[in-house]
Parts: sequence; C-alpha cells; structure tokens
Amino acid sequence: MFEIPFSVHEKSPFDTTTVISITVFFTLICLCIIIGHLLEENRWANESITSLILGLVSGGIVLWIRKGQSSRILEFNEELFFIYLLPPIIFNAGFQVKKKQFFKNFSMILTFGVLGTLISFCLVSSGVMFLFKKIGLTQLNVNDYLAMGAILSATDSVCTLQVLSQEETPLLYSIVFGEGVVNDATSIVLFNAVQSLDFSKISSMTALALLGTFLYLFISSTVLGVFVGLLSAYLMKTLYIGRHSTDREIALMMLMAYLSYMIAELLNLSGILTVFFCGVVMSHYTWHNVSESSRITSKHAFATMSFISETFIFLYVGMDALDIDKWTESDASAVTFLAVSSSMLALVLIGRAAFVFPIASILNCLKKREEQKIDFRRQVIIWWAGLMRGAVTVALSYNAFSSSSGENVSNERSLMITCTIIVVLFSTLVFGTATKPLIKAILQGPMRGFSDATDIPSLDYLVLPSTENGETYSNENGDDDDDQRTRGLSSLVKYPSSAVHHIWRRFDDELMRPVFGGRGFVPYEPASPTGAADPGHQH
Amino acid sequence: MFEIPFSVHEKSPFDTTTVISITVFFTLICLCIIIGHLLEENRWANESITSLILGLVSGGIVLWIRKGQSSRILEFNEELFFIYLLPPIIFNAGFQVKKKQFFKNFSMILTFGVLGTLISFCLVSSGVMFLFKKIGLTQLNVNDYLAMGAILSATDSVCTLQVLSQEETPLLYSIVFGEGVVNDATSIVLFNAVQSLDFSKISSMTALALLGTFLYLFISSTVLGVFVGLLSAYLMKTLYIGRHSTDREIALMMLMAYLSYMIAELLNLSGILTVFFCGVVMSHYTWHNVSESSRITSKHAFATMSFISETFIFLYVGMDALDIDKWTESDASAVTFLAVSSSMLALVLIGRAAFVFPIASILNCLKKREEQKIDFRRQVIIWWAGLMRGAVTVALSYNAFSSSSGENVSNERSLMITCTIIVVLFSTLVFGTATKPLIKAILQGPMRGFSDATDIPSLDYLVLPSTENGETYSNENGDDDDDQRTRGLSSLVKYPSSAVHHIWRRFDDELMRPVFGGRGFVPYEPASPTGAADPGHQH
Repeated sequence: MFEIPFSVHEKSPFDTTTVISITVFFTLICLCIIIGHLLEENRWANESITSLILGLVSGGIVLWIRKGQSSRILEFNEELFFIYLLPPIIFNAGFQVKKKQFFKNFSMILTFGVLGTLISFCLVSSGVMFLFKKIGLTQLNVNDYLAMGAILSATDSVCTLQVLSQEETPLLYSIVFGEGVVNDATSIVLFNAVQSLDFSKISSMTALALLGTFLYLFISSTVLGVFVGLLSAYLMKTLYIGRHSTDREIALMMLMAYLSYMIAELLNLSGILTVFFCGVVMSHYTWHNVSESSRITSKHAFATMSFISETFIFLYVGMDALDIDKWTESDASAVTFLAVSSSMLALVLIGRAAFVFPIASILNCLKKREEQKIDFRRQVIIWWAGLMRGAVTVALSYNAFSSSSGENVSNERSLMITCTIIVVLFSTLVFGTATKPLIKAILQGPMRGFSDATDIPSLDYLVLPSTENGETYSNENGDDDDDQRTRGLSSLVKYPSSAVHHIWRRFDDELMRPVFGGRGFVPYEPASPTGAADPGHQH
Repeated sequence: MFEIPFSVHEKSPFDTTTVISITVFFTLICLCIIIGHLLEENRWANESITSLILGLVSGGIVLWIRKGQSSRILEFNEELFFIYLLPPIIFNAGFQVKKKQFFKNFSMILTFGVLGTLISFCLVSSGVMFLFKKIGLTQLNVNDYLAMGAILSATDSVCTLQVLSQEETPLLYSIVFGEGVVNDATSIVLFNAVQSLDFSKISSMTALALLGTFLYLFISSTVLGVFVGLLSAYLMKTLYIGRHSTDREIALMMLMAYLSYMIAELLNLSGILTVFFCGVVMSHYTWHNVSESSRITSKHAFATMSFISETFIFLYVGMDALDIDKWTESDASAVTFLAVSSSMLALVLIGRAAFVFPIASILNCLKKREEQKIDFRRQVIIWWAGLMRGAVTVALSYNAFSSSSGENVSNERSLMITCTIIVVLFSTLVFGTATKPLIKAILQGPMRGFSDATDIPSLDYLVLPSTENGETYSNENGDDDDDQRTRGLSSLVKYPSSAVHHIWRRFDDELMRPVFGGRGFVPYEPASPTGAADPGHQH
C-alpha cells in the first residue's frame, strides 16, 4: 500500500555480531538443558558430555556455513572465563557443600588436593620434559614444561560428582568433591607461581620460597573469604533487610560473594579459595539470617547460575576445539599430534595413579578402625574421578601458550594448545562416558563395612555415656541425627578430629552465633514462614 | 626469613582495570542497598535518588583522586545498557504486573502510552526547534530536533511507583506503570524511526508510513513475545523438567526470556515490547507449570536482577554526569547551559501536561459511571509521575549525539548530551525528592467515590442475576474475589471491556490451558509442595 521510506533500527545501538553470538549461545544452552533432561535416565550420557558434543556439532556447522574459514562465534576469552564463569561455580560449590562431611574429612581432602596435585605436577612436568624432547620438540623452555605440569594437573570432577550420591556414599563424595575444589585452587596458584618464576636467579631457597608463598596464599585467601562471609552475616543480622525487601537480601548476598572474589584478585590472592570459603561461611551464617523466601531463592539461584556457567563452558570448549586457525598454525604432522597428545594423556593417567594409591594407603595405615579406611575399589573411583580435564585446563593453556599481543606464536606453542584441547575432549568424552556404568558397577558389589565409612564413628558416640554437659546440640544441616554426644577428655585423645569438631561447636555457639546469627536465628519481626514462602499472596 | 623470588599473579590472566571497576561498582551497589534500606522510612529519599547521589559523590571522589582528569571508571556504554541492563528490568515488569488490572485498563494505558508520547514528541520537537534557534544554536538539523523530541519523551516512573501502592490505588498504579512500559517502547521505536528518516525524500505519505511501521513493530513484537512465552510454557508442561532438577527449570525460563529480547533485536523489532509480553505470558502459564521452589526462586530472582540493574543504571548515570571531558568539549557559556537545560525542562513539563489533562478529560467523557472517571487530583499524579527522566533518556542521547567512530563532535552536539544529563539529574533529584510527600498529601484528602475507581464496576456484576452458566471462575491472582459474574448479552453491550475479559477467560480455559498449563496445572508427579519448598531437607 505504501513504501516505507526508512528502515527502523538501521542504526542499531549495538553491534549485531554480539547479538548473534549471544542468541546462538543461549539457544544452544537451552538445547543442552532439554537434551540433558531427556537423557537423564540414559546409561552413558551426562550434562557435560551433551554440551561438549553439541558444541562440537555447532562448531562444525559454523565451519561448514563459513566454508572452512572459522568455527568461532566467540574467541575463547580468559577474562570471560575467570571473571564471569568460574566464580559462580566455585561459590556455589562452597555454598552447597555439606559442611559437616567436608570438615570431617578436611585433612584427607587437603592431603589429596594439595600434596596430590604437587606430586602430579612434578611427575607430569618431568614427564613432558623427557617425552617432548624424544618426540623432537625444541622450542619450549623449562617454564613451559612446568606450566604444562600445572595445566595437566587441574582436574574436572563434574562427571563423577553427577554419578556419586551425597547420601549413599558421603565419604567418597566429599573426598572427590573437596579434592576437586582444592585441586583447582592449587593448580591455578602453582601455574601462576611457575609462570613468574625466574630460572636465572634460582637458588636453594626457591623451593622453600615456593612453599612459603603457597601457605601465605592459602591462609590469606581463606581468611579474606571468611571475613567477607562473616561481614555479610553480620549485616543481614543487624539490618534485617528482609523486613522491607527480599530482593535486597538476595542482591546483597550475590554482590558480596562476587566482591570477595574480586577483592582477592585485586590483592593478588587466590579468588577461587576466597569465594569458596565465602560460600561456606555464607551458608553457615548468612543464609540462616535471611527471610524464608530469600533462603529458597538464594539456594536455587546460585545453583542455577553455576549450572548455566558450567554448560556454557563446555559448549565453549566444544566450539573452540574445531577452530581451524589453531590447527593450521601448529603446522605439525598427524604423527606428532598423536604422539604429543597420547604422551600427555598417559602422563595424566600415571600422574594421578602415582599419588592416589600411595596416599590412600598411607592414610589407611593411620586410621585405627577398619571402617574408616578407603578400600581398593574406592581408591579406583577416586583415581578415575580425577582423570577428566576441563575448562580450567583449557583456560590455563591459552594463558600460557597463546600470544595476547598479536605477535607470532611459534608452532610448538600452538601445538601445546591444540593437544591440550585434544586431551580435554578425549578425557571428557571417553572417560566421561564410561564413568556412569563404571562407578555403578564398582559400587554395586558387596562393600566392606556399612554403606560408607564415615557414617560409622558417629555410632560410637551414641554408646558413650553423656557427661560433660547435658546440652543437646542441634544438628547442623539436618543430614544426621547423632549429635547428642559426649566429649570427655578420653574422646579427645581417642578421636581427635571429632574433638576439634566439638571445640568448634562450642566456639560457634558461644561466640560466633550471638554475633553473626546462623541456624535458629529468629529475626525480631517473626513473620509467618509459610506466608513469606507463599508466592501466591503477592503475585 | 626468606626472599620471595617472584610475585605470584604477576601475569594476571585479565586486565586489572576491569577488576577494579567491577569491584568499585559492586561495592557502591552494596552501599546503595544498605543506605536504601536504612532510608526506607524516610520521607524524601528513595532508591534511585540514593544511587544517583552516591554515583555523583563517587564520581567526585574519582575526579579528585585523578586530579580533575576524568571521573569515569566505565564509559557510558550503550551495549551494556541495552543488552544487559534493560532486558531484566522490562522482563520483570511484565512478569510481576497484575495482569488483570493491566488488561482491564489496557485501552487507557495504550492511549496514554502511545498517543500521549506522540503528542509530547511533536510538542517537544517543535519546541526545541523554535527555542534553540532563539538561543543561537545553529549546527543542529531537523533530525537532531526530532531525536531530541523522542529523547525527552522517554519517562522514568520508578520514583512514583515506589510510592504508589498496588493494593490501595490499583487503577492509578496500573495506569502509571503501564504507561511507563508502553512509553519506553514507543519512544525507542520513535527514536529509531526518526534517526533513519531521510528528509530529502519526504512526501505526504511519510506520516502514514510512520504509522504503518509503528503498528507493524507493535504487533509483530508482541506476537513474538507471546510466542516465546507460550513455547516455554509448552516445554515446561510436556517435559516437566522439575522432576529432575529445579535449576534446569529456572535456567530455561531465564534463558528463553532473554532469548526473546535478542531474537526481537535480530529481527529489528522492539525487544522491549517482546520481552515485556514474554514476561506476561510466562507469569500466566509457564510460572504455574514449574515446581513450587522454582516458582518462589524465579519470582524473587527476576525481581533481584531487575533491582540490581536499576541501581546500577542510576549509579552509572550519576558517575557519568561528572565526566569532565563532556563539559569542556561543549565549550559553552554558563548562560547557554542554563538556557538550553531550562528550556528542555520547561518543554518536558508542558509536553506532558499537554496530553495528560486533555486525554484524561476525553476518557472521562467516554466513561458513563462517575466512579470510573479520573478526577483532577489523580490527573495531577499521572502528570507528575512522568516528569522524571532516567537511563533511557541518557542512553538515547549518547546514541544520537556522541561520535562512536572517534571523529570530532561539534560543540553543540556535546552540549545536547550534557544538558540532557542536567535534565535527568534535576528531574530525578528535585522532582523525585518531592514525589513521596506530594503524592501522600494528594492521596490523603477525601477522595471522590471509593478507594479507587476500577474496583467499583465489579460490584455491579454481583447484583446482576447469574444466567449464562453456573461456572465459577477461579480468580487469577487472588487479588479480588468478584469473578462469579453473569455475562449475558446485555452486559456485553453495557460493559464491553468485561465482555472481552469473559471471552478471553473462556478461550483461556477451553483452548489455552489444556495445551500450555497455567494456574491449577498439576504435574503428573504430585510431590509434596512443602517438601519441595523446604530448603532444609537438602541443604
């Protein structure tokens, strides 16, 4: 009827490519969620494998549409990864962790996570140094080999955690889960240390200095995380913001959690450790000081953000794997590719076996009771859980071997990136697919002792007579009912770890909770909890 | 004891300035939340004023630290605004709107939002054309004047909505709220149309073409939003994802809502309208198809995201206002500044008065019953509610008058930006501060009729005899109890708007709900709702 003399939105306020890539990525994440849901009962599949495959497929389609030019929609961006995607995942890990199990097995988790990662780092570093020279690579220096050791020591235990049940096998779950978190932090700290190490000035004090820095980072990062968590708890308790607005409470929790990570990074500490412990403290104190609806919302909102970030990362890695430039840049023969990646993969397998079985055996010798020991089948599961490599590996590899300033990258450095990606793809797809049936098969056989080791000692306490004080400790998260125990001097000698737990409980009840709130804190305006949780009355 | 031979994190994986600006902004948002909470009972303050002032103060501090060089931590970034901050605000508006009130007054809202904005646009455009020439500006062309008209017609009714109560004055609230949303969309569409209008090819058909494009954008954007909303409802109902995971449900809702905005932008439609109607449909169907905990979480999570975005925007505008470069660039005398900004402000006041009172009077003549009419005091409130200018105005002004490609901007174009910011600051700070006491004073006096006009007609229906069918309609959101009505042919003639509502209800019950779920939908796995909502059992 009439001609339109102008096209609306011709001068769009923003770049179309950003809109396109966001649209594609979000559509793919939606697809991942739906496919993941449909495959939930499937024997082999899990969420990370689905995302990775979907990423590969869509990378292939993009490559085909652009006629082989590029599979990239977004460049692999370390800033995106370390600033936006990693913090929610780690915070949620701390927020949802069963604190009791985690701290009960804290020494075990630290041993596996720190000592184990160090052993794996040493072994893989010397392994690549030896093997890569045999293969014929010449351009890499000692720093690169050490970086490779740190890169290949960062595990990704998501696949295994999706299979293990927190209720049925609490010990196994908490070791695998806790090791995963500590391992991430350890390998990133190691990586940064190695990257800035100057081998011209090396002395006998270097190892000692490395250890000192390590301890400094660990302790100060933890302290910062605990401090921010306690600050948020104190604010929530004193202000009782939920009186006026649920949204303010949730916003404040989110922002302070994220701030803890950012402040740690600003102070050159380990943001991962900080945000993890911030999450732990927030779930112990802050979470109990907010209104009922804020509790439900924060719990699920944090989990959702973590879930979206994880899916995003796997999609990203999958799409990035098909990037044609990287493959041509490295300029290597298929034999070299195969040799480098398979030696990496072999070192990953050996490096992990070299600490899981020895450490487990030593820990078994230290435990007095049969039920607390980690039997061989559980050792195999712990070993297997850490074989997959994921996003942290890819991100660190880019950080070490790509040129950010646009200068020419040597072939062998590009080769390192591509081979790392091959290792990530292979381990996630092949090992990941086998995880579900493997673990189910291992766990199905008759197990020594009861359903899981650490549930046993608590039974002992019930038998001991109640002496010290008649106070009934309310259990922390409703996950066990055996807190009514005695803590005489005898039990402190016999069971040191639970004596520590007892001291902590008294400290918590008498000093911390009056200041920071926590479970059982009743705000001074006791609104009906069902009323607050009922969405119908407002909506 | 020993020297550390390297500094950890020396080669940080990301830019320090990003980390610093995120840290500063998030700290400021936390401060805004706490101060806003403390000032909740205050007579004058509200959240947007707090954020704006805090932004100004911190901008001043940054300026002082950098010794007058720049107050900017982040550049005002339209991409950030239109891609990340605006969609959550608009989606949440649609998600939380009381649909019944909104659609009951739909014709009134559309009249004020579309016709009113057009009138204001024409008046302001011709006003600036006339006044700016008098002041002595010469470098601007017709497109710039028209753009200015669209920019100054975008209202920000946040301040007023924080004062009005949805329960006490539903008619007033729904008009102010609905007009705000429709006004945003109208002025952005107008702005884009004007920006791309070519005045060399202007003909008698231009106005008609403008109208045609307008209708096309309105209808197609709405249809797209409704389609995505229904798709999400259908997916949730058929898959019943909550069976496996609450997080998947929430993630899918969030991602699909965001996708609707992105797809609309890709198709050159109005993303704001699309995401608004997507929110309306999602709250009517999808929200009822998910698990209990997903409902609580999604409701509060969306509100929180919207709240954070709003606070962020006001902080941003406040900080940006002190940017020294803009002020020196415009190179104008204080008199020119004053003349331009005060004429803008006067046009805003007149432009709004020119449509609110006439339209209200015409609407009053069309209403038969006294109680449905908008009395003069309510007209004043509606007029006042739209005097504040906010982030959309700033964003559009940057889009029109700043140079994105780095070329030299003429002095007068910079002057337009600075004066727009002065108008935004003045209207938000001065008018905003007066809003709370003013509205309370107006509403306190004795009102004609009952508490609010639209609550009255429903009483009439209760008197009419029940004929057509004995079916009891469950009311939609529990916000009124008068749905058991008769809809004879006589009532269709007498009360056309409620007849439309009746037809919609039947259509909804008989065709839509069986396919898309909605209120009363019972998933095939009836889990205990309290069990699902109870955070204690998992955490």
